Amino acid sequence: MILRSVQCLLLLHEEGAREMSINLRDRRRQQTAKDIQLAALRLSLSLGYPAVTTDSIAVEAGISPRTFFNYYPNKQAAVLGEPPSLDCDCAAWIVTSTAPLRSDLARLLGSMLEQKQLDRQIVRMIEQIWDSAPELMTIFRNSMDNIALAIGRLLEARLGPGRQQEAMLVAELATHALSNAVRAWAADETMRVADIPPLIERQMAEVGRLVI
Amino acid sequence: MILRSVQCLLLLHEEGAREMSINLRDRRRQQTAKDIQLAALRLSLSLGYPAVTTDSIAVEAGISPRTFFNYYPNKQAAVLGEPPSLDCDCAAWIVTSTAPLRSDLARLLGSMLEQKQLDRQIVRMIEQIWDSAPELMTIFRNSMDNIALAIGRLLEARLGPGRQQEAMLVAELATHALSNAVRAWAADETMRVADIPPLIERQMAEVGRLVI
Repeated sequence: MILRSVQCLLLLHEEGAREMSINLRDRRRQQTAKDIQLAALRLSLSLGYPAVTTDSIAVEAGISPRTFFNYYPNKQAAVLGEPPSLDCDCAAWIVTSTAPLRSDLARLLGSMLEQKQLDRQIVRMIEQIWDSAPELMTIFRNSMDNIALAIGRLLEARLGPGRQQEAMLVAELATHALSNAVRAWAADETMRVADIPPLIERQMAEVGRLVI
Repeated sequence: MILRSVQCLLLLHEEGAREMSINLRDRRRQQTAKDIQLAALRLSLSLGYPAVTTDSIAVEAGISPRTFFNYYPNKQAAVLGEPPSLDCDCAAWIVTSTAPLRSDLARLLGSMLEQKQLDRQIVRMIEQIWDSAPELMTIFRNSMDNIALAIGRLLEARLGPGRQQEAMLVAELATHALSNAVRAWAADETMRVADIPPLIERQMAEVGRLVI
């Protein structure tokens, strides 16, 4: 695991031409994914989410239906955008870190958000559609569960044998704190994305004091 | 709120004939609900959950289709049984209690479980069907969310203004700890239902120490 972390760090810091072209391709892909998501959100807000189809999203985004399915499996996924995900290899430093767990978790979630490139307008548009589409909540939760599971496994390795339950509870607490912090950021123009990790850390410390 | 708590306590301790007949009717209703649930679970395990219909559950339980719908809105609900719920009036003591929060939460969730009358066999049967039926997970989560929301509101009242976020995080932590503890109890024949609240309390204290 340590070897893979080192490889991962090397990969992150590599500045070769190959790496840059991959990054460019990734950025283009991210931009198209975001354009399709914005089209899906605009249509949902104007027509009502149930009336939106994958075909109408493709027309609105100016792409072919086939291209749509290269990016998202269905309209729900398009509305929510590419889910945040945790690269467990790159996150493996948390297993051996000796910093306070709440700080490490805030840092880990913060680096995940950086990759995802949060957009306040998109988060607000999703919040407007949210209540009328419970299926979106299910998909959102599944992606949060996957993150919690990935963090839980890393924490299990950090805490050692016999502490699987606490590892998962801490991971679930961390993802709830993340959701809260992102909603707080979406609602408050004066908050920066960089303020999200410290808020997560404060909330976890506060919960810790309350239940200890 | 204090007046309602007192009324609630009086109601709980009232030993009049009316109260006893209501209890008898409630118990009969609970028993029929459980019989229907067992029929739904037996069928799901023998035929596979997707093949089960509300009609086949009614036949298996020896009731009319109409009676089925007096108890459950659909087969998903029948498989999961009546969801646990929190009577916020009867739980209002937690607002003013000065005991440690983790102890109060464990007591509150314990009293909710007592009303629900957990059945180890049923929990195990649900766990066997669970993975092949993601829709069950969604319904189960919605009922857990409702409990978390009810607890969150009570904790908001206890913690005072400006602490809504922490109140909800603690409530979510408590319901995750409840799910964990019930699963641990279902897997371990030597655990009694009475052992669940202390396990919830220990888990919350442990999480507190980890994130403080």
